[in-house]
Amino acid sequence: MGFTLLVAFKAESQNIETYKYTASEVVTIHSRVLNEDRKVYIHCPKLDSSDENKRFPVLYLMDGENHFELLSQYADYLSRADVAAIPKIIVVGIPNTKRVRDLTPTQSISNYDGKTDTTGRYKLSGGNEIFLQFLKTELIPLIDSSYKTQEYKVFAGHSFGGISSINCMLTHPNMFNGYIAISPSFWWDNEYLLKLTEKRIKAGSTLNKTLFYCNGNEGGSNSFFHKALLKFDSIITAKKLMELDYQYKYYPNEIHMTVPIVAYLDALRFIFKK
Amino acid sequence: MGFTLLVAFKAESQNIETYKYTASEVVTIHSRVLNEDRKVYIHCPKLDSSDENKRFPVLYLMDGENHFELLSQYADYLSRADVAAIPKIIVVGIPNTKRVRDLTPTQSISNYDGKTDTTGRYKLSGGNEIFLQFLKTELIPLIDSSYKTQEYKVFAGHSFGGISSINCMLTHPNMFNGYIAISPSFWWDNEYLLKLTEKRIKAGSTLNKTLFYCNGNEGGSNSFFHKALLKFDSIITAKKLMELDYQYKYYPNEIHMTVPIVAYLDALRFIFKK
Repeated sequence: MGFTLLVAFKAESQNIETYKYTASEVVTIHSRVLNEDRKVYIHCPKLDSSDENKRFPVLYLMDGENHFELLSQYADYLSRADVAAIPKIIVVGIPNTKRVRDLTPTQSISNYDGKTDTTGRYKLSGGNEIFLQFLKTELIPLIDSSYKTQEYKVFAGHSFGGISSINCMLTHPNMFNGYIAISPSFWWDNEYLLKLTEKRIKAGSTLNKTLFYCNGNEGGSNSFFHKALLKFDSIITAKKLMELDYQYKYYPNEIHMTVPIVAYLDALRFIFKK
Repeated sequence: MGFTLLVAFKAESQNIETYKYTASEVVTIHSRVLNEDRKVYIHCPKLDSSDENKRFPVLYLMDGENHFELLSQYADYLSRADVAAIPKIIVVGIPNTKRVRDLTPTQSISNYDGKTDTTGRYKLSGGNEIFLQFLKTELIPLIDSSYKTQEYKVFAGHSFGGISSINCMLTHPNMFNGYIAISPSFWWDNEYLLKLTEKRIKAGSTLNKTLFYCNGNEGGSNSFFHKALLKFDSIITAKKLMELDYQYKYYPNEIHMTVPIVAYLDALRFIFKK
């Protein structure tokens, strides 16, 4: 007799149906840029008759396999009529195929402490520009042609996804209107992105964006994570940019894997505040 | 030609599947106690081979139509192997049929300010004892016989659900091990439950429970909501109870409908801390 992992015995209950979540979709597209098939998860808001002619902002979310359900849930709850903290939005979750390849801006095998990584895990690093090309020339056009999207778009990520979001803001400033970077791995390649931020953003210039960045307790307030975020925050603040709406938050009670839970909630409310 | 509310145009995309959430169930049972059919939503954890012989604690959640998806999402994420903030749990969401009837402990038509309510909305109030009987004699036995449950059970609610949770702790102290009361409506019936707490709980006695209660910004720090929570907290603290593990949290940046989002996250981690 085979063993089954079911939680339910289902011996007696008669009237059992499947719970109906607001349906989300999995769309598979072939990316010529990446030369592979990619799945994306799409969560659309529940509509009512007042939404007839409306179009919706889109949140593009990296690490879709980790945070798509959480963000979909927040998007639904925060846009309820009796909460009304954010407008209805479309969430596009992008699960990884080769995470290190897609979500790092440079080829590097240095660890966070500057020492050479010998595990081979960073061998394929440095493909973020190609990944951003996939978004720009394939994914975003497909979403815009298939769903009732507004032009307003946000790019959100955690850890390596966080540096991808910042890298995109610096290198393709016209792709998105808002950026969320949760505990970005600024240590990558000897703080490559902090240097790029210093170099690419001109003091006193206009950067018509909304930007949320944060970190949790990733080794305490003396950790490289925390210090790098403070450094990024100083650079942004010192630049005295025009029309940039930004917020830095520190979550000392959250670890690296729980900071997305509280930070995405704050980030959605900051980025999409009415 | 009929108008459709679809967010998607679906003109071109070819490979579209439905996103597969971890399946939750809707079980319909006939309650003799309440003399009506009741639906309950059940979310079971994702299992792996190490869970073969395990049984799971159960969270019974009032206002299932509002917070079941959020709590299911938190339960899944917080129990991931790389987060490991809480154990895997079963979430049982109880959507309302007649909310005021089921979730108020006494028959009253007084408003929060003590004035008589003339809208008729509290006409059916006072059925919480019958609702608790439904849980005790029908719902909990069904869940225990149909799913791989542990004995450890938690009762959670918001607003009227919050006073139902506290009322259950006071009047049926053996039904649950943990209680969550998010912004409980202690104003109900001239602070009936604060008086009952004072009366029922004996100073210095043993109350082997875990208890989380909180409020948000429901009219500021001088509001009846906030003052009632402080009063409840003083009563509990002054009783110097043995074996009671309790926490009071105040969320001044959250309104009545957003406090559940942050508070349930903290509550799950407090109640199920490892």
